[in-house]
This record gives sequence, C-alpha cells and structure tokens, in this order.
Amino acid sequence: MKRRDFIKSTLIGVPVLSGGSFLANNQTESQEVGFSTDDRRCRLRELGIKIGALETGPHNAITDIQGVKVGHRTIVKGEGPEAVRTGVTVILPHEGNIWEENLFAAFFGLNGWGEMTGISSLEKSGRLETPVFLTGTYNVGIVYSAALKYLTALNPQMENAAPLVSPVVAECFDDFLSDTKSRQVSEEDVFEALRQAKSGPVEEGAVGGGTGMTSFGFKGGIGTSSRKVPGGFYLGILVMANTGSRDHLRMDGVPIGREIRGYQYRTEKTKSIILVAATDAPLLPYQLHKIAKRVALGLAQTGSYSHTESGDLILAFSTGNKILRNDRHPLPSIRAIDDFFLSPLYQATVEATQEAILNALTSARTITGRNGNTAYGIPLDQVVEIMKKYGRIGDRIHE
Amino acid sequence: MKRRDFIKSTLIGVPVLSGGSFLANNQTESQEVGFSTDDRRCRLRELGIKIGALETGPHNAITDIQGVKVGHRTIVKGEGPEAVRTGVTVILPHEGNIWEENLFAAFFGLNGWGEMTGISSLEKSGRLETPVFLTGTYNVGIVYSAALKYLTALNPQMENAAPLVSPVVAECFDDFLSDTKSRQVSEEDVFEALRQAKSGPVEEGAVGGGTGMTSFGFKGGIGTSSRKVPGGFYLGILVMANTGSRDHLRMDGVPIGREIRGYQYRTEKTKSIILVAATDAPLLPYQLHKIAKRVALGLAQTGSYSHTESGDLILAFSTGNKILRNDRHPLPSIRAIDDFFLSPLYQATVEATQEAILNALTSARTITGRNGNTAYGIPLDQVVEIMKKYGRIGDRIHE
Amino acid sequence: MKRRDFIKSTLIGVPVLSGGSFLANNQTESQEVGFSTDDRRCRLRELGIKIGALETGPHNAITDIQGVKVGHRTIVKGEGPEAVRTGVTVILPHEGNIWEENLFAAFFGLNGWGEMTGISSLEKSGRLETPVFLTGTYNVGIVYSAALKYLTALNPQMENAAPLVSPVVAECFDDFLSDTKSRQVSEEDVFEALRQAKSGPVEEGAVGGGTGMTSFGFKGGIGTSSRKVPGGFYLGILVMANTGSRDHLRMDGVPIGREIRGYQYRTEKTKSIILVAATDAPLLPYQLHKIAKRVALGLAQTGSYSHTESGDLILAFSTGNKILRNDRHPLPSIRAIDDFFLSPLYQATVEATQEAILNALTSARTITGRNGNTAYGIPLDQVVEIMKKYGRIGDRIHE
Amino acid sequence: MKRRDFIKSTLIGVPVLSGGSFLANNQTESQEVGFSTDDRRCRLRELGIKIGALETGPHNAITDIQGVKVGHRTIVKGEGPEAVRTGVTVILPHEGNIWEENLFAAFFGLNGWGEMTGISSLEKSGRLETPVFLTGTYNVGIVYSAALKYLTALNPQMENAAPLVSPVVAECFDDFLSDTKSRQVSEEDVFEALRQAKSGPVEEGAVGGGTGMTSFGFKGGIGTSSRKVPGGFYLGILVMANTGSRDHLRMDGVPIGREIRGYQYRTEKTKSIILVAATDAPLLPYQLHKIAKRVALGLAQTGSYSHTESGDLILAFSTGNKILRNDRHPLPSIRAIDDFFLSPLYQATVEATQEAILNALTSARTITGRNGNTAYGIPLDQVVEIMKKYGRIGDRIHE
Repeated sequence: MKRRDFIKSTLIGVPVLSGGSFLANNQTESQEVGFSTDDRRCRLRELGIKIGALETGPHNAITDIQGVKVGHRTIVKGEGPEAVRTGVTVILPHEGNIWEENLFAAFFGLNGWGEMTGISSLEKSGRLETPVFLTGTYNVGIVYSAALKYLTALNPQMENAAPLVSPVVAECFDDFLSDTKSRQVSEEDVFEALRQAKSGPVEEGAVGGGTGMTSFGFKGGIGTSSRKVPGGFYLGILVMANTGSRDHLRMDGVPIGREIRGYQYRTEKTKSIILVAATDAPLLPYQLHKIAKRVALGLAQTGSYSHTESGDLILAFSTGNKILRNDRHPLPSIRAIDDFFLSPLYQATVEATQEAILNALTSARTITGRNGNTAYGIPLDQVVEIMKKYGRIGDRIHE
Repeated sequence: MKRRDFIKSTLIGVPVLSGGSFLANNQTESQEVGFSTDDRRCRLRELGIKIGALETGPHNAITDIQGVKVGHRTIVKGEGPEAVRTGVTVILPHEGNIWEENLFAAFFGLNGWGEMTGISSLEKSGRLETPVFLTGTYNVGIVYSAALKYLTALNPQMENAAPLVSPVVAECFDDFLSDTKSRQVSEEDVFEALRQAKSGPVEEGAVGGGTGMTSFGFKGGIGTSSRKVPGGFYLGILVMANTGSRDHLRMDGVPIGREIRGYQYRTEKTKSIILVAATDAPLLPYQLHKIAKRVALGLAQTGSYSHTESGDLILAFSTGNKILRNDRHPLPSIRAIDDFFLSPLYQATVEATQEAILNALTSARTITGRNGNTAYGIPLDQVVEIMKKYGRIGDRIHE
Repeated sequence: MKRRDFIKSTLIGVPVLSGGSFLANNQTESQEVGFSTDDRRCRLRELGIKIGALETGPHNAITDIQGVKVGHRTIVKGEGPEAVRTGVTVILPHEGNIWEENLFAAFFGLNGWGEMTGISSLEKSGRLETPVFLTGTYNVGIVYSAALKYLTALNPQMENAAPLVSPVVAECFDDFLSDTKSRQVSEEDVFEALRQAKSGPVEEGAVGGGTGMTSFGFKGGIGTSSRKVPGGFYLGILVMANTGSRDHLRMDGVPIGREIRGYQYRTEKTKSIILVAATDAPLLPYQLHKIAKRVALGLAQTGSYSHTESGDLILAFSTGNKILRNDRHPLPSIRAIDDFFLSPLYQATVEATQEAILNALTSARTITGRNGNTAYGIPLDQVVEIMKKYGRIGDRIHE
Repeated sequence: MKRRDFIKSTLIGVPVLSGGSFLANNQTESQEVGFSTDDRRCRLRELGIKIGALETGPHNAITDIQGVKVGHRTIVKGEGPEAVRTGVTVILPHEGNIWEENLFAAFFGLNGWGEMTGISSLEKSGRLETPVFLTGTYNVGIVYSAALKYLTALNPQMENAAPLVSPVVAECFDDFLSDTKSRQVSEEDVFEALRQAKSGPVEEGAVGGGTGMTSFGFKGGIGTSSRKVPGGFYLGILVMANTGSRDHLRMDGVPIGREIRGYQYRTEKTKSIILVAATDAPLLPYQLHKIAKRVALGLAQTGSYSHTESGDLILAFSTGNKILRNDRHPLPSIRAIDDFFLSPLYQATVEATQEAILNALTSARTITGRNGNTAYGIPLDQVVEIMKKYGRIGDRIHE
C-alpha cells in the first residue's frame, strides 16, 4: 500500500490496511496483549507530511550514522493493576568497544525533573563511554547495574583501570500504562536489548523503553529521523517521547492537537522526553553542545514549551573522532569542522528532532495498560485531514 | 481604519491607508529620509493574526510589566556610503533607581557571536543593576561609557561603593543599512534615549537600536509583546531582531517566508537577535534562567535555528523582588512562586517571544540606507493572503 | 588522653594509646578483619591542628546543621582476591520527608569522571528531593534502586505523582581495597545505612561508603567538619575522599605529603572525591552554587589540583527553606540572605572543606584488603612532628 | 645584587639597594609622582620562595608562550582628589592578526561583580578573536571602543564581514588610588599599550591596568608566572590583582598576611581579580574550561575564598591551533592533547596562578594616590623573615 493510497483511503473515510510497510515497525508485538484494533500505523512521511527542506538519510533514522545501532526489549505482560508495559531501548554509539574508543559528546538539560545518569562525568570529560539506555523511571537502577556488568564483561581490564565509566541511563515515567513499582525489567532484559541492537530501520512507537510512554495526549514512545547535510555527513535523532500537552501539538506548524476530535483519555500530567542526537560529522564537545541546544529548538517546533514537570534531557554525540582510552597518544589526531559550516547541521537537527517526535506519535499504536488505562494512537486519518485543511498536503503534495 | 477593513483592503489588492493606529508607532520618524512609500505598517494582531492562547497585557508590550519603561533614540542621517541608520533603545527595569534596588535576573546565551556586556557579573550575582541598552555593534563602547556616567550621576555614592556596576549593553550588527564605522551615536544620544523612556505603548520596527536592523530577509528592528498569566502576573518580551533567513520564517507555524514573492534584497548574512524578558512574577534567578530558555523556544517557533553567525542572547528579569544595595538587610523578605506554577509563564514566554519578533517585522517600514541598500518591510498584503491560504485567518477569523 | 599528651607522646617516640576519644570514631569496626595494629586515630583538631579562623559547630560535623543525619553501613568481608571493603553512607537532609519537603540545592562539577546521579534534575529544578547516598562505583545501580524503593515506601502517593524523584547517588572507585565486581552491597545494606542515620558525632575514616577509599596516598574515606557563621547559622561539609597524590598533600598550607617518610603503598591512580555541603542559612539555588564553588577552593587548599581522572563532584543544600511538594502554595514564603552576607559562609566553606578532608585522613586506620593491598593510615606522629617543624603546632599551640 | 644577598641584607635589617634586577620591572615609572621611597621590589623567586615543583619558563611569564606579547600604558598624574593612577594592559594572544586567526578559548566566572566583555560570544563560540585588555572599571567603554577601532583598522574587511568581533575588556575597580570618574584613559592610551606590547620579561606591579590596584591589603597590580610541562609545552598566567583580604594571604601555604606587622592602610573592600591563562598546548575549548577552573584553585592557594564583592573572572586560551576566519576550510586540521595528559597542565596552572598573584604583590611598590590614600608594597624584609620562621626559606634554601 503506497502512501498516496493510504491517504486517499483515509480521506474517503474507508481506511484499508493491507499491512506491508505500515506493519514493518511493530511486527514483534503481534503476540502481545493489550493493544487496540487501531493498528494502522506508519511514519510521518508515509502520510505525505515532510518536515523541513533537507533530505533524509537512507533509513530516516539515527542508524543512518554509520555504526550506530538500536536495540529494543519490549515487555508487555498482564492486565489490570499489574499490567506491565515497559522495556529498554539501547543505542550503541559505534560498532567497536565504546569503553575503549570514546566519542565526543555533550549534554543540554532543557528542563529538570528527569534522570540521565552519567552526565556529571560526560559534561566535564566531553566523552561518551557507554551505550545509551532508555527506560522507565523505576528501572534506572537495574539498567545501570546491568550496563556496568556488560561493560565490565567486555572490558575485563576495566576493573583495574581508572577512570571508571558512568553508564548513561535516561528515563521517562511510564506509570499511566505500566505497573512501575513491580520493576519487571531484569538485567537479562538489558542484555537482550543489547543483543537486539542492529543497523538499518528502527522500530518506533510502543517498543523498548517507549512501550509505556505517552506524549502530547496520545500514545508516544520511540521515534527517530535523520538528515543528510553538505559534506556527506548525516545527523540522526532518536527520542523517547513522554511529554507535551495535546492542545499544544503542532505538525509542521499546524496546530493539529487542538483540531483532533475524540480519543481523549484520562487527563494526566505528561512527563519528560529524552532526545539523543548522533552525527558522523567530526564535532568537538562545544559544538555538540550547540547541536544539543538545537534539539531543544526542534522540540519547540512540536509545540512543547517544556513545562515544569518535564525532564527534557538532550544528549549529542559524534562518531567522527574516536578517542582511544588505553592506547593513549599524547597528541591524537582530531578531525574537526569549522563553526561556519555548522549551520546546515543545526537545520538538520531542528528538522530531524521534530520529525522523530512526530514519528513516535504516528508509529505508536493504541495501548491499554495498567488499570485499564488507554493511550490512543494519534488518529492518522484525522491527521491527514487536518494537514490537508491547513494546506500542507493535498494540493501541495505534488511539489 | 479597523483591522478587518485593512485586511479586506489588502485582500482586494487596493491597499488604503488613512493613518491612525498604524502610524502610531513611528511618528517620530516622519521627517526622516530614506524611507520607501510602503509605510502602511501595523502590529501582527491588527492583521488578524494571533499567536497562542493566552491573553495579552493592556499594551501587548514589555511595558505591561508595571514600572518597565522603554525609550528610543533613532538616528537617521545622510545617504550613500555615509548613511547612518542606527540608534539606541533602553529598557528601564523599574521606576526607581535600579542601581540601588536591584532585580533578580538571568542570562541564557543560545548562540555566540554577539555582545551583551555585564553578563560576567549578572550570571554570577543573579542581579540586574542597570538599564538594558540595545544598539549597533560599533556603538557598544560609547553606550557603555554613557551608561556608567548616567548611573554615576544618579548615584554619587557609587564611586566609593563596591561592587561596581557593569552596564548591560547588547548589540546587533547594522552595517547593511548604516555606516557603522562612523559611530554617530554619542553619549548624549544615550541620555536622550533614557529621557524618552516611558510606559504604555512601545514604538516598534525601525526605531532606536532597531533602526538599522534586518531580520528574516526583511526590515527588522524592535518588537514587543506580552501575556497575562494566572495570578494576575504579566510577562513581556522586547526584541531587537536582526537574525533569521527569509526561507525559514514562520508565522504561527505557517512557512510564510518561502511563500512571499518579491521584495528580495541583496543577500547578506543576518546576524543576531537580542531578546529581553520581563515579568512581575517574583521569580528567583534559577527560575528566570528557565524563562530565558523558553525565550529560545519562542524564537524557534519563528523558524530560526540559531545559525552559527547569530548572537542570540537572552536576558530575563523579574520586578517581583527588589534587592536593596545600600540598606542591607541580613534576611530580606523574598517573594517567590513555586516551580509548579511556572508552566503558564513558560507558555506566555514562548507566545510573547514569537509575537514580539513578528511585531518587529510587521511594524518595520522599508528603509534605504548605506550605499543605497534597501531592506523591505515585510509586505503585509501578502502576509494576510498567505495566512488565509494556510487557514489561519479568513474563515477562522471569527473564532 | 588529652591532645597535648598525645602530641607529647608521639614527639618523644613512645606512642601510648589508652583508647578513649581516639577510638570513638571507629568502634563498630573492632570486630573486623584486615586492620593493621596502627589504630591510634583521631580528628585533626585532637592533634592540635586548627584550620582557619572560624569557630566550629558543636560536633564539628555536617550534623551540626539541625536535622541533618548521617548513617553508615560498613561492609568488611574476606581476604585476598575476594576481600570486600566497601559500604554505603547516607545523608538525610532533614528530619522530615525529603520527597514531600524539598530543599534548595546546587551542583558544581569541578572535574569529570565520577558519578552523581540525580544531577540532571537537581541542577535544573534547584531542589534536593532525596537523601544523598555515597558508595563504591559498582554499587551505584543497586543503591539507586534501593533509594527509589525507600522513597516509594515512604511516599505511596509518589507513584501517581509527577515529577518523579531522581535519587542522588555518588561514587568513588574503591577497587584497590575491595573486590568491586562482586558487588556485595544489597538493598538491605542501603536500608540499614538509612536506619543507622543519626544526629551528633559522625563516624569518620574507613566507614560506610568510605570503607575502601584511599586519598593522598593514605587511607581515606569519610570526613566531616563544620563552622559557625554570623547570624547563628552553621555550615557543614561531609566528604568521601578517594583522591589526591601524596606529594601534593597540604595541611594548613604545610606540604606534609612530601615530608612524611615511609608508609608507601603500591602506586595507584587515585580517583574522585565527593563533597557535600549543608547549611541552615536560607540560601537560594544560585547562592548554593556559589557555596559549591567554594568547596572546590577548600579542596584546593589540601593541595589537590583536581587531576584528569578524578571525579570531583560537589553538592550543596540548604535547610533554610522547605518547599512543599504536595501542598502547593502559589506564593510560598521564602527566607533568604542577601549576597553581601555570604562571604562568611564562603570562608566557612573553604575552612570546613579542608578540615573535613583532613579529618578523613587522620581518622582512617590502615586497612589491608583485596589481594593484600594495604592503604596506610596517615602516620599521626609524623604529622605532628612535621606541623611542629613548620611552625604550626608547638610554640604556637598556646595561641 | 643577587637574591641571597638581598635576603641576607633584609634579614640583618640593613636593606641595601643597588638597583639592577629589582628595578628592571619598573623603569618606566621613574619619572612618576606619588611613589614612596620603599622601592626595593623584586619577584617572588628572587626572595628565595618557590611555588610548586614544576620548572618555570625562560621568563617565568605569560610571554613564555611563543607569540604572546604584553603591553602596558601606565597613567600617573596629579595628587589629591584628582590623582590619577590607572592604565591599560594588553595581551596580544599571538603574533599574527588575531581577528583573522582565532584561538580556542574558554571562560570561567568564579564570582560575579566584575566585567569581562566579549564573554557572551567567547563562551559560545569557543574562540578568542581579540587582544585581551585589562583596565580600571570606568575605562571599559573607551577601551572597548578603541579595541574595535584597532581591530577595524587592521581588518578593513571586518565591516562587511560577519560575525563581528566582541573585544575582551576586563576591569577591576581602582578608586582607592585613582580618581576614577575623571576617566583619563583615552583611545590613544589603548593604542599606546598595543604599541608597547612585546615578548620577553613582563613589567609587573603598579603598571598598566594594575597601576591603581590593591590586593590582599597591599599594593597589587599586574603579576605573571609560567611553567614548563612535559611535551615541551608552556603554560603562563597573567593577573590583574585587586582582591583579597590581608588576613587571608598565604604564600606557599604560610599565613603570611596575618603575620606581617604595620603597613596598614585605610580599610577598604577590595574588589576583583582578572586572571588570564595561556598555553601553547593545543587544547580544545572544553579543555581550556578545565584549565580556567584550575586557575581558581591556584587563586584559592593564596588564601582567597572569592568573597561576594569580588569579580573573579578567568580566561584561558591556547595558541596550539589557529582557526582561520576568512580562508574557511570545511575540515580544518586540529591538533589536540588527550585528557589523560592534562594533569601536568593542571598542576602548572595552579602553581603559576599562585606565583603570578604573589609576583604582583612583591613587585608592586608603595603608591600614594587619590586623596592621599596610600597602598603599601608588601614589606619584603618581613616576607623573608616570616617565610624563614615557617621553614620555607633558610635551612631549606639549599635544596
């Protein structure tokens, strides 16, 4: 089923689903309980909605950065008060041993009340030394332990070496759909997410760490997008979206949140979004901090104003330089890009961030979880209809 | 001439101007040279375009914060290579003696390559101790000197007191329209801006420090807006806009920049925007830093991604507490607002920032300056037409 | 045995130990294995060495801040490759429920390569919402989990509330003395440290999180000190010291590290120090950030220059204002101190930080741990002798 | 006169002065008014006092970094209420055109209430684009203007280029000795300081921007020092010292301030110190930020705790990479040093900072200025006597 066909079908009020590309992102959940029948999901571009002007990478995903892999472990069990809808998503920053070959990185905390461990080290050292783990709030401790166990197993010398590593584990609060206090995530789940990590297309929506997340009043979760920039570099974003109010949601500037009818669920305070940017452009830490700030600007374009309760935490890393930990050269060779060539990367960041968040929404299916709470997947037919009304698809679709 | 009439007239292609409210903002320039005949200007709301959901203050201006005054000194002289189109805008933070009664303040530097003096002090002390001065790049030194002279004259005791004050002087680069190297701004000009400072409606566009500024490919300059928030507080923004590319410009999400036809001028790199937020909500410095970050989110909604060359510098202050310098109490009484009540202020900040920037554009007339360079006022008839095409005014105007 | 007697005895080369006050700090370890016979330990002042000019609090400890409690769980097991010398130290910030009644707080990361979780939230929110946990590197995950379990048990409403809490767990790397990979710390150990938390004198040296730490080439660990400042306020410091090179160690400016003879142990890279400042002076977050910076200045006076591998992480909190989480007032009453009264607190911070670090050294006994590695308690007789040689005790002791 | 002779002469109470090296630093002032007869001055090492363990550079000055030049313009005029004792010191960061060839740089604001302009740009861009100017508070505006005029004259293309430069002008408050409000500094004085800039030995004490400064209760001003580090790199510090209380002053840990007798002057609040670090080690901006923090640690070792009123502002730059502004390469070649090789640079920074501050004191002669106010040069005979008493020189001098 092609995009235009889908749009056409939704517009005439007779949604048809033949599977195909729309299901590609969520096959692994087919056996799971708790999903609504509204499982026609797709990525934003499959609806005919393009964000920005730059070309995407081959997979329009953070994995377009050579060597970056993403793995999910999705945990869906039970119903009622003990329903578990949670998981772990891991980003492997490169194909090698990240503890031995560090990457430059930077953190920007747009708003507090959220956890990203490892930051007290990363901000000062300018380095990423671990995979990045995304999970539910109550799982941070166990994921942290597992991450350290994983790194130790890979690097037996670590125990006698200094400095030690501080794993980057970030969280959002998934209690609306998941019985968070039961902490069903185990170290083995973390290892499984690591084993599942792969290049290529990335599953989005209600998977991995995003399984129980809600965002902008709809089902949220994992989303990703990428852009190609001059010089042949790529910039990719992966988000775990659990933030935003429905009435603020914008798509490419269209106030879509306040136009959608129905699908209201029990009001809850949404909380936090974790945003990770990766690029193969060889940026230095201070430049990655600039990228991280532009991620905030991309978030802003979705309508978020980063409310008090939201932990809006941003990490950016570059695969363009690998800094060896053990084979220490006094004068390593560093590749770099002049600041005056950064602007296309900023544009790429703003565009890909916005699209990654929207991909999380359009990809995430309706899920019913703890206490029967239901978070609805954003209704794609209405999305198409509203975007057409506001002049974004339809006539302009032939551009 | 009422808003609807104006809109109507533009839509039928017969712009009519009877003056009135549209001229209210730029009377002082009537004798000046170098303006185009396209002098129908107005504020964004007069075009029927509303940003966001919150109510504005009485003047939709930073002066809605009780005690805040704005003064302009506009300097327009000569033509050709020696044309001067520059000036000074001053914000008086309260009605008293700001050196004796400081205000809590915070700074957020979204992007470098711009100057805001006084920041090395303000960031650490959490205090604003001076008026805020906005001017062209080459005038910073003389304005700094004049500011210190002004403060010394008001506070003879200052010379024997410590700590000294560091005036806040911020700049954008107005060389496209103005012969910057001639530095036509004098200390007397600064004093005149101070004398002109007043409450109530604020002149916008090509006035004061904004006289020579361009933004988003059109004539830019000074803009302001405000919002009322629960609790009876106000939040106001004043910007000096000299940043942004035309093809990125958005109004309420509409990609208006790439839809406007004509009015292209010689390509130039635009540079910098200074944004000042004021509120009477009694915020502490760390909370004002949060406000300053939301100003960046508002800037993002205009389509800016804060390119490398842009000095995007943000100051936020609160009139809610006055900290006496000379009559030092060991335990001053501090009013405060809990963080959990900040979110409406964030929303107000994002909305007012966007609207202030757009007000600068819609208010600024076409100006021809140095070497015959012309920066066009954004064509209001096209603005209305495009916003209607994108479903923002017209049918929805009756909401 | 009085201080003078001790000094006298050490100076004549006939150390005598009758126990008493010198043992007061480490009674709980008397049953433990692995200690040398050099167990005459005492606090710095008991040696006749005073740091700075300000008066200490009653206990010369962080617990001099009303409501602050400290609890240790010390774990000493086995010998050889599997020797465990680790533990957990907890600081309860006030007597109530810290999740319901938050305190203003600030973080300053002097140097990276160390972990303090919860910082991405605390830095932005300006609040401490949890006890502070200090432990060995490999225990962070389990302590984090236990901390969240503890807070959830105390606050059943937490699971339905937002924002969630991010526990503050900080670490140093104790692998020289402890088989870190075995992770012998359990959630129960964390709960036990919480149960043990008490006011009054604080055990120092090889206790709790400090059990396996080494510092400045000697046995390190937990140390504390406090100062009284004008206005009747107190400022206290507690450190977990695992940093510094022996040849840089200074006491009150005396280069004592390079004067001490013997007691060399296998060279190792020392790693990290966690420093926590508490005060009952009602400081705002930006002021606590200033205090945290002064902690770094106090660390500098011990001779540290914060080397690359050291995670030198600083937390400061004030008990002077309690910010209620659940009974939200829109306009809470905030007590504050004018910046111009902060200088005595800065002096107190620098003095108490230096003394806390030195207390960790003089209090910590020789310990033999993993693989027979021995970290020697700094030899107190030599300390006294050297300080006398440099004119700090002896003639000047009668001042 | 050799160091040992000087020490000997001071110790036997018969100060002898034959000129020579002691005068080398202040020849240009010989014609000036207002100096006391106590003009035996020298650098710290000439008194036999060594700070730290690392070797100094050839001149023990910031000019040991290849290409760095320092120029002073000292202004001493009149007596009584109109006495002027002020000036300008300029640091040229390299031998070329700093606007065309930028250097990586970083800023650390230890404490507020001081001005360093250009920081809002430098902090974000990571670049130094201008000479560094040090002067009295009231001169900032005129020096800023002159700096921009200088840069424009050197770079005619600047006016058409973006981004513009923001000169780095830093100040301390010299009102105790100088009639600050008369602002006797002219643009020509700034140009003269630039013309005087040279390599080799640097004049210290009451020269240039330091002419009217006081520090730790004595005459302060300009001081410098350097260290050689492994790899053949140098690190140099230059300070303009106007901060610190006499009773806190330490030299190599000795509490010398409270031991010195006499030479008390009218109590005043001292205010601010500007500290500039330079190195030819090719450090990146985030690494230079680390260096800047270590400057604070060096300041701490002089006994300062950075009191509220003090503007303690730190700049660090590296000549190891030159980033071309106009001939922009998309992928410049960047030299770098691994973090694990930074520790010697940290040690160098702490040592050189301490020594630079002390050099300012020992080099600065007694000066009488405004209203007959006198700031005494620290009495060198007492310094030697006290350092001997505390075991730092004398017996240990032969080491």
